Amino acid sequence: MAETFKTTKRVEFRDTDAAGLMHFSTYFTYMEEAEHELLRSLGTSVIVANEGHSLSWPRVAATAEYTAPVRFEDELLIEISISRLGTSSVTYQHTFSVAGKPVASGSITTVCCKITSSQAPTAQEIPAELRTQLESYLQHSTIE
Amino acid sequence: MAETFKTTKRVEFRDTDAAGLMHFSTYFTYMEEAEHELLRSLGTSVIVANEGHSLSWPRVAATAEYTAPVRFEDELLIEISISRLGTSSVTYQHTFSVAGKPVASGSITTVCCKITSSQAPTAQEIPAELRTQLESYLQHSTIE
Amino acid sequence: MAETFKTTKRVEFRDTDAAGLMHFSTYFTYMEEAEHELLRSLGTSVIVANEGHSLSWPRVAATAEYTAPVRFEDELLIEISISRLGTSSVTYQHTFSVAGKPVASGSITTVCCKITSSQAPTAQEIPAELRTQLESYLQHSTIE
Amino acid sequence: MAETFKTTKRVEFRDTDAAGLMHFSTYFTYMEEAEHELLRSLGTSVIVANEGHSLSWPRVAATAEYTAPVRFEDELLIEISISRLGTSSVTYQHTFSVAGKPVASGSITTVCCKITSSQAPTAQEIPAELRTQLESYLQHSTIE
Repeated sequence: MAETFKTTKRVEFRDTDAAGLMHFSTYFTYMEEAEHELLRSLGTSVIVANEGHSLSWPRVAATAEYTAPVRFEDELLIEISISRLGTSSVTYQHTFSVAGKPVASGSITTVCCKITSSQAPTAQEIPAELRTQLESYLQHSTIE
Repeated sequence: MAETFKTTKRVEFRDTDAAGLMHFSTYFTYMEEAEHELLRSLGTSVIVANEGHSLSWPRVAATAEYTAPVRFEDELLIEISISRLGTSSVTYQHTFSVAGKPVASGSITTVCCKITSSQAPTAQEIPAELRTQLESYLQHSTIE
Repeated sequence: MAETFKTTKRVEFRDTDAAGLMHFSTYFTYMEEAEHELLRSLGTSVIVANEGHSLSWPRVAATAEYTAPVRFEDELLIEISISRLGTSSVTYQHTFSVAGKPVASGSITTVCCKITSSQAPTAQEIPAELRTQLESYLQHSTIE
Repeated sequence: MAETFKTTKRVEFRDTDAAGLMHFSTYFTYMEEAEHELLRSLGTSVIVANEGHSLSWPRVAATAEYTAPVRFEDELLIEISISRLGTSSVTYQHTFSVAGKPVASGSITTVCCKITSSQAPTAQEIPAELRTQLESYLQHSTIE
């Protein structure tokens, strides 16, 4: 049965805009920040430096839907689960709520990659131990 | 026959990250910046202040797909068209390329709204003159 | 005797850059975020909406000095005191450290102002109750 | 006799905040963007990748003073000169104006450094050719 990873984030002033609302691009950085917190809770990081390269998770797709405006200092509850766990890729599903009211949802698909300073990232298999940990957050029985 | 609005943007250093690539959230701000340039080219703006409120275009959905990495100082060509023009809403389609090579694509759906400092935005009909101007960028014959 | 307000902040990935370090502009947003947390701890906010306008604290000056690099996921300790408390203005002093080692310091000078959508901000006297609260953080006996 | 490097920048929506003004931290990113444009005009870049490391210009100090508010879509004229050219360091002076009216000024001090993924940046002498080019922007006769 899938767990949900939960975290909170108070809307920062830099993330608001002249319409008085949280800027729409910020939901993506907050989703990412929550994902990074999830990875830290598993004892790893979204970017692990090796000699001359790093292992990281570039994003291949991202989506968001906005249902209610959010303002400076609102406290967002962000809940994450995983909708798809591939050989190299993970799709995270995020929901945002304020005081129990849903305000937005979104997804981020990332691929485990080797990164160097000069070449395009190349996909790597998700390390077995991490894969097992991520399965706890997998919705339904959609393991491939 | 649909026109495409074209603009260029050189990747700013603040928009890169420790993986050495342009941060995935930045594609959304670059899409928005291109949309605002399109609106300025039509003689209007994404936010028009009135007495005690403003007319603006909150986003209700946004998507992006990333196919190749982009780095600091790369010059992006951004091309915009409109895939759907509703009574109050517009869906913009964006493609990003570097030196002729596609690197990403995305969409933003916005709704013409009245914004006040205390209440939720309320949808407004797209002003008729602007609507006619936007139709030039509409793909196919999908006017509703 | 002056108190110091303390808070912590883990470096977000969006705040790193292609040199692998935290971007220098981010220290300013982290200083601001710490200041806002201080104001919340006093029961107020950096922006309070009134009818047709808001009371806020535009910045008139900001400085930073960087002594050691900071990287993704470093945990910053931010300590704030006040070096000058004027009739309308406050100068906050911030120090940043990681694991006990100083990495940066900076200051922000803000002025209590009335803000409207169309006119320049106009300075206001700091409300008496808030002034008394801020004096706890004042270094030396430099109250004017 | 010192030249001034000039560039323009239209205020982006993401750079405004809920007070309706351009966010104070953004002046630093705009100063940096102007500096990078100056470096490109000289045929170089603020970050040059080498094997296993890069040559870049970390910031050691930054200041800004804000004299008038700036809003979304204002067109800023940014003018840069150099107030100090050391063995490894450069201090750039920036002024911002809108329609001929000064709105802000600031400075950034950078040091030419070798950057690796694991160690602290180490200062390098400014390459001779670049140094000669930068001297054109030096105020007064303060070459050391």
